[in-house]
Amino acid sequence: MAADWNDFLQEHQSRFLDEFLALLRIPSISTDPAAADDVRRAADWVADRLRQAGMEEVRILETGGHPAVYGEWCGAGGKPTVLIYGHFDVQPVDPLHLWTHPPFEPAVVEDRVYARGATDMKGNLLLPIIACEALLRTEGQLPVNVKFLLEGEEEIGSPHLGPLLQEHRQLLACDVMVSADGGCGTPDRPEVWLGPRGLVALQINVRTADRDLHSGNGGLAPNPIHALVRLLDSMRDGEGRITVAGFYDAVRPLSDAERAEIAAAAPPLAQYRAATGVRGFFGEPGYTPFERASARPTLEVNGIWGGFTGEGIKTVIPCEAHAKITCRLVPDQRPADIREKLLAHIRQHAPAYAEVTVDVLPGEADPYLIPADHPAQKALVRVLTALTGQTPRVTRGFGTVPVMGMVKRILGVETITLGMGQADERGHAPDEFFRLDSFVRGQRAYVMLLHELSRLR
Amino acid sequence: MAADWNDFLQEHQSRFLDEFLALLRIPSISTDPAAADDVRRAADWVADRLRQAGMEEVRILETGGHPAVYGEWCGAGGKPTVLIYGHFDVQPVDPLHLWTHPPFEPAVVEDRVYARGATDMKGNLLLPIIACEALLRTEGQLPVNVKFLLEGEEEIGSPHLGPLLQEHRQLLACDVMVSADGGCGTPDRPEVWLGPRGLVALQINVRTADRDLHSGNGGLAPNPIHALVRLLDSMRDGEGRITVAGFYDAVRPLSDAERAEIAAAAPPLAQYRAATGVRGFFGEPGYTPFERASARPTLEVNGIWGGFTGEGIKTVIPCEAHAKITCRLVPDQRPADIREKLLAHIRQHAPAYAEVTVDVLPGEADPYLIPADHPAQKALVRVLTALTGQTPRVTRGFGTVPVMGMVKRILGVETITLGMGQADERGHAPDEFFRLDSFVRGQRAYVMLLHELSRLR
Repeated sequence: MAADWNDFLQEHQSRFLDEFLALLRIPSISTDPAAADDVRRAADWVADRLRQAGMEEVRILETGGHPAVYGEWCGAGGKPTVLIYGHFDVQPVDPLHLWTHPPFEPAVVEDRVYARGATDMKGNLLLPIIACEALLRTEGQLPVNVKFLLEGEEEIGSPHLGPLLQEHRQLLACDVMVSADGGCGTPDRPEVWLGPRGLVALQINVRTADRDLHSGNGGLAPNPIHALVRLLDSMRDGEGRITVAGFYDAVRPLSDAERAEIAAAAPPLAQYRAATGVRGFFGEPGYTPFERASARPTLEVNGIWGGFTGEGIKTVIPCEAHAKITCRLVPDQRPADIREKLLAHIRQHAPAYAEVTVDVLPGEADPYLIPADHPAQKALVRVLTALTGQTPRVTRGFGTVPVMGMVKRILGVETITLGMGQADERGHAPDEFFRLDSFVRGQRAYVMLLHELSRLR
Repeated sequence: MAADWNDFLQEHQSRFLDEFLALLRIPSISTDPAAADDVRRAADWVADRLRQAGMEEVRILETGGHPAVYGEWCGAGGKPTVLIYGHFDVQPVDPLHLWTHPPFEPAVVEDRVYARGATDMKGNLLLPIIACEALLRTEGQLPVNVKFLLEGEEEIGSPHLGPLLQEHRQLLACDVMVSADGGCGTPDRPEVWLGPRGLVALQINVRTADRDLHSGNGGLAPNPIHALVRLLDSMRDGEGRITVAGFYDAVRPLSDAERAEIAAAAPPLAQYRAATGVRGFFGEPGYTPFERASARPTLEVNGIWGGFTGEGIKTVIPCEAHAKITCRLVPDQRPADIREKLLAHIRQHAPAYAEVTVDVLPGEADPYLIPADHPAQKALVRVLTALTGQTPRVTRGFGTVPVMGMVKRILGVETITLGMGQADERGHAPDEFFRLDSFVRGQRAYVMLLHELSRLR
């Protein structure tokens, strides 16, 4: 038996990697109805893994959608209770032809694991489970009480998580939450994160006729693609400012200190450009690209389609066209308010010759920001400083993790984020990967964090 | 043996219908590389059918692309030579789920045949062949010399037809061409057609990064869909006028007489609306919808795609987006000139943050107009008047038939159009059909036309 948790982690790394690969092989795409059994299989796998780690009261929590998984170890009398959050569902994989390896046949190439879900977030998900196992197997106990809440609907906007939190408020009662879904920069450039932007998502449908028509009808038959591009274009001005009336009304202005913090945390634009291949930067004037992506709201078209999209030419005027848009929200915007403003804009700008309908897509989420001086946030800063030898920069914004706003509202606690995802690891894109040294380092980080959190009160 | 051509046609209708259905079963989609063998199969079928009709010198003409078919009967010494044009290729069938019957399993429902290619133009293609067969089998000769030129690339813009006409100028020498590709209104409302609009087709490709990014990057990563919708929107103003510099420069102004002719030929808008389900009309101010679709040039987006287009939500900023556009041209616009003006507009309006490339799609075609008082056009008017008891209205524009401009330029002859397609028969769309009474009436019309054309000189 290993003498301490550090030895334990070293001795079992090859097993942990095998487990990681096994979890990656489950195609738990939550947005695909055909993959529902796989999402459940991932839930069962995770529940078994929690039991194996020594967690108690492990169970599947039914939600009406994809299930969640609960487990706890509450033997640390008088110590704080920490709720650890993660998700075991993943994004879709299209376009499939851009993957070097099949997305659900994980490939270990040098120090990386390539697979859908590698960085978002099956690697991260295992870190706190392995940390608890190492502590329980070597010290026989944890320094704090730990509860796990692992869900299967994060990538579709956690539609059942609110009701689940409500229903299990007693079970999930805690002093602070730790989300494993995210990143903390790199070892050379550690970061802590204050919280995610919120989200509103819509699908716009334009119809102009009962059926597709020969494009010889051009001039006579109205074209839904023209209507759609004009409508979408009306939502932003030529400089990238969003022109939906009232869109910016509730946005909390940035202080000079916050702008300095964002500038300090931002990697050089040249580095971002090299990592992504972006051809240039564009957006709301008066803000830097990283301010726009963290402390400012956005409106992005995530998908558009209509008419003939195959090889060659088909001279058709389609009868319908569609687009999906998402807005990222920042404090103090509210999803319902922004949604209504978008709907009003669409109603007002829909041309008379087209029938425009809107589907509100799931995934609406509140923005969230933890106060930078919260004791748990400070504990996280200490862990990262000890782990990397550097003071982490403070970041905010970018992606959306709906759970944080919900947990604040329903359970009344703040959330810190400890994960090992890095910005270049292609989350949501083909050839997603996770670094194996992150996988090892993250396990140690969680052991350290649990110890730090034991001093919370 | 039938006493005259009229009896012959009546006696053999069920065989003709079987032949029509057999030809419809061949999925000769010229734009689909995988269907190349089927296009060739259709060519062989048509060649056999010409031989069976009594045509001579029947042969496949190789083009470097899909083959064409030639056949002739030149025993009418001293009489005019008529070149009959048609095509045996068809449009693609997507979206397949909107078809009531499989597109290549023709369904006869009451007086209609449903299949891809029914109205455009496998039904029409058979009309002159059957007419020649009926005359040769009953009268032993044709009233004029007849040459058939039937191609397999019309639906991809006849890319090899120009070189083919050049190569076989002697073989194809004639006094006038008759195109079977089109319509002549309805029995209640006959029409003659002066010629098609021209065409230019482009695909616009926008790229902003090397790979798709998580939409949390919104504000930081540029979005190619935004660039594309802005670029497309910049090509038309809010009233539907095309804003590409110089686009209208070469357009021949409409005379009051021509406008009156177009108005007289136009069906009531309510009828068009009922037939197509269009929700309204929209386009270049100062012109009626039918003027816009016949005597004015257009710019239409035929397809657009980018990002996530599946069910649900995927929070992605795509790295590329695409659109296909076609312009319909009218006299005296030239395809090369309009193409260059479009390219200049795109270059000028491409944002700095995006890489915009353009593929010139095949299918460029000159607009064509036969003089309304041409003797062959007058012959056509006499046939339709005799057939329907009404004076046909005079129409122009709408679709593109590239062969007419080419034949005028290379063979030096004018083209009249005799076909039985009707506007509501869903050419290029799901549930395409052809009326069986058109099929029968069209055979007689061709017999009458060949007799009329024998008096041409």
